[in-house]
Amino acid sequence: MREAELDALVVSDPANMNYLTGYDGWSFYVHQAVIVTHDRDEPVWVGREMDANGARATTWLAEESIRSYSDDHVQSPYDLHPMDFFAEILEELDAEDARIGLEMDAYYFTAKSYTRLQKNLPDAELDDATLLVNWVRVIKSKQELELMRQAARISENAMQAGLDAVGEGVPEYEVAAEIYDSLIRGTDEFGGDYPSIVPLMPSGDHTGTPHLTWTDRPFERGDPVIIELSGCRNRYHSPLARTTFVGDPPKEMRHRAEIVVEGLEAALDHVEPGVTAESVERAWRDVIEKYDIVKEDRIGYSMGLGYPPDWGEHTASLRPGDETVLEENMTFHTIPGLWFDDFGVELSETFRVTSNGAEVLAEFPRELFTA
Amino acid sequence: MREAELDALVVSDPANMNYLTGYDGWSFYVHQAVIVTHDRDEPVWVGREMDANGARATTWLAEESIRSYSDDHVQSPYDLHPMDFFAEILEELDAEDARIGLEMDAYYFTAKSYTRLQKNLPDAELDDATLLVNWVRVIKSKQELELMRQAARISENAMQAGLDAVGEGVPEYEVAAEIYDSLIRGTDEFGGDYPSIVPLMPSGDHTGTPHLTWTDRPFERGDPVIIELSGCRNRYHSPLARTTFVGDPPKEMRHRAEIVVEGLEAALDHVEPGVTAESVERAWRDVIEKYDIVKEDRIGYSMGLGYPPDWGEHTASLRPGDETVLEENMTFHTIPGLWFDDFGVELSETFRVTSNGAEVLAEFPRELFTA
Repeated sequence: MREAELDALVVSDPANMNYLTGYDGWSFYVHQAVIVTHDRDEPVWVGREMDANGARATTWLAEESIRSYSDDHVQSPYDLHPMDFFAEILEELDAEDARIGLEMDAYYFTAKSYTRLQKNLPDAELDDATLLVNWVRVIKSKQELELMRQAARISENAMQAGLDAVGEGVPEYEVAAEIYDSLIRGTDEFGGDYPSIVPLMPSGDHTGTPHLTWTDRPFERGDPVIIELSGCRNRYHSPLARTTFVGDPPKEMRHRAEIVVEGLEAALDHVEPGVTAESVERAWRDVIEKYDIVKEDRIGYSMGLGYPPDWGEHTASLRPGDETVLEENMTFHTIPGLWFDDFGVELSETFRVTSNGAEVLAEFPRELFTA
Repeated sequence: MREAELDALVVSDPANMNYLTGYDGWSFYVHQAVIVTHDRDEPVWVGREMDANGARATTWLAEESIRSYSDDHVQSPYDLHPMDFFAEILEELDAEDARIGLEMDAYYFTAKSYTRLQKNLPDAELDDATLLVNWVRVIKSKQELELMRQAARISENAMQAGLDAVGEGVPEYEVAAEIYDSLIRGTDEFGGDYPSIVPLMPSGDHTGTPHLTWTDRPFERGDPVIIELSGCRNRYHSPLARTTFVGDPPKEMRHRAEIVVEGLEAALDHVEPGVTAESVERAWRDVIEKYDIVKEDRIGYSMGLGYPPDWGEHTASLRPGDETVLEENMTFHTIPGLWFDDFGVELSETFRVTSNGAEVLAEFPRELFTA
C-alpha cells in the first residue's frame, strides 16, 4: 500500500478477504469487502447484517472491526446500494478525501459498486489496486502448503474415482457424482471443501472445448475423456488433470499423450528459483516443436486459495512474455494439452517451487488411461 | 430495449447469456457477454477463443455471431483487456456512438470492464441496464417450468439423502458428500447439474449464521441442523430447506418449527395472481406476530435459471415495500425462518404462481426432523 501510495484499500475478492482476515462463507453473492488502512491494527470487515455472525465465527477481528449493512440494501427496490454504507465507513475511517485502492477487475466488484463509491466520495481519489493482495499471496507459507498437500491427497482420490467410473454406456453425470462424492468425502483423515471450479470432463468431440460441464450423454466406445478437478481444503486447491479413453486408444492418440507427458516433464524439470515463468513454457514448447506441433496458449498459472469461479490467482502465468522470476514456495498449476480437430489430450500437475526444483503435489501416474 | 431507449445491450450475467442464446459453460471466470442490437436477428456472443467452441456447441447462433478474443487478453501482463475487443465489436456493430446498456451491477461485469469500455468508446452513452433481462425472465415458459419440476425431483432425493446422513458423530463433510452425490446423480430418469450455491448446512451454534459451509466437525447430540440445497437441471433450480435435530428436540424448538410451518403455509395460501409480493410476506408476518415474534428480513425471491454464486434473479422479493404484482408462472423460493440466540429453524418451498394459487414444486413433509 505504501509503495502504491494508497491510504486505504478496499478488498472485495473473497480469496483476498480470506487471506487478510480468515473470513469464509458463501456470501460473495452480496457486496462485501474488508477495508485496510495504515493506522488501524486490523482490517474492517464490511458485509450484510446476516453475515456478520459468519465474520465473528471465522475471522480473528475484534467486534468493532465487524460492520454490517441492513437487509434493505440487498438487491434493493429502494434507492439503496451497499456501497452507500461502505462510503459511510470510509468516512468514519477518515478516508473520504484519501487515495483509496479498489480491486477494479475483481469478480465481485461490479461497475455499479465503483460508480456508487465515486458518487458518495467525490473528494476521494479512487485508484486501481487490482491484484495488489494477489501478488502478496504468490509465495505460500508452510501452513498454506500443508493445506495444498492435503488438497492433493483429495485430488488423487477423486481422480481415481473418476477414472474408475468412466465406461461405455455410463452417463457423464454419474462420473461427475462419483468425483463430487470423493472430493467432499476427502480422505480417511479429513474432509474436502467445495472446489472453486466444478469437475470438468470434456469428452468425445468436445475434448477441444475445455469448459463445458457434464450432461446426460452416455460415454461411447472411442471417446477420449479429459478429467480436470481439484481437491480443496480450507479453500486451498491442488488441481489435477488426466485423460482417459473408452476402449482401445488409436496409436496416434497414445503418441500424442506421450508427447504431452514428455513436454510436461520437461517443463517441470526446468523449474527452479531464478528462472522465469515464460522459460518454463519455453521448455514445454521446445518439446512439442520437435514433433512439429505449434501451440501458443499459456500452460499454467499461479494458484492456491480461491473461491468460485476460479482457483487461479491471476498473477504469474507460464506463457511467453511473463517474466516473473520463480521463487521458492510459489505454486503453479501447469496444464499443457494438445488439441486437434478430432481429439485432445491433457495432463496436468500442481507443483511448488523448491530450493532447487519442483515438488509435484499429487502422486498420480502420468499416462493415457483406458476405460 | 426500446422502452429503455437503448441501441445496444451488453449482457454479461451468465444466466442472461444462457437465456438469450443457450450458452452454457464454466467460462464466466473470464470476461464474456452477448451483445444485442435492434438490426441483427440474433445476438453476438463474445468471449475467449478457447470458449468459442463451447458457444458453437451450446448456442443456436450462426458462425458469424460467435466472436472471440485471443488468449493474451486473459489476465494479461500486457496492456490488454477483453473490453478492448468488445469495443471493436461494438464499433463493427455501429454502436460506437450509440446508447449502450450495461449490466452495471451484475457479478461478472467488473468496474474495470466499465472504465475500459468508457475509455475505448468515448462517444458512446453508457447506461445502466442492470436487471433488464432479469425482469423478462420473471415469468417462466412451459419448458422452463418442466426443468424446474425436474430440479424439484432432484431436491427431494438430495434432501432425503442429507437427512438420512445426519447423525451424532458424523462429520459435516460426510453429509455434504451424500447430498452432492445425490444432487449430481439426480433421479433414475435424468442426472443433475451443479447448483449455483453449494449445499448449506449451518448447525449447532451456527444455525443463526446462514452462509457458513461445512467443516470436519462431527454433529453432536443437541445440534439443530438446517439443510438448504437445490437440485439443478440445465441450470434451472428448485431450492428446498428443512431443519433436523440430532437427538430429541426441546419442546420450545418443536413449537418454533410449528410456527414456521404455520407461517409458511399462510404465505403459500395467500399466493395468487394479482396480489403483491409484499402481501405474501405480510401473511407470514401476521402469523409470527400472533406469537409475539418480530422479524423483518425478506422471506423469498424470484428465481429459476442461475450460475454461481446465486440462483436468485435479483428481481421481485417477498418483503415489505416490494409492490410487484404476482402473475401466473412466476416462481419464487420462499424461505422463512426464525433465529434466536440459541438456535434457528428454517423451512422453505419453491412455488409457481398458478391461475388461482400456488403450485409447490417439491413434495417433502413440512416438519422438524430428527436424527
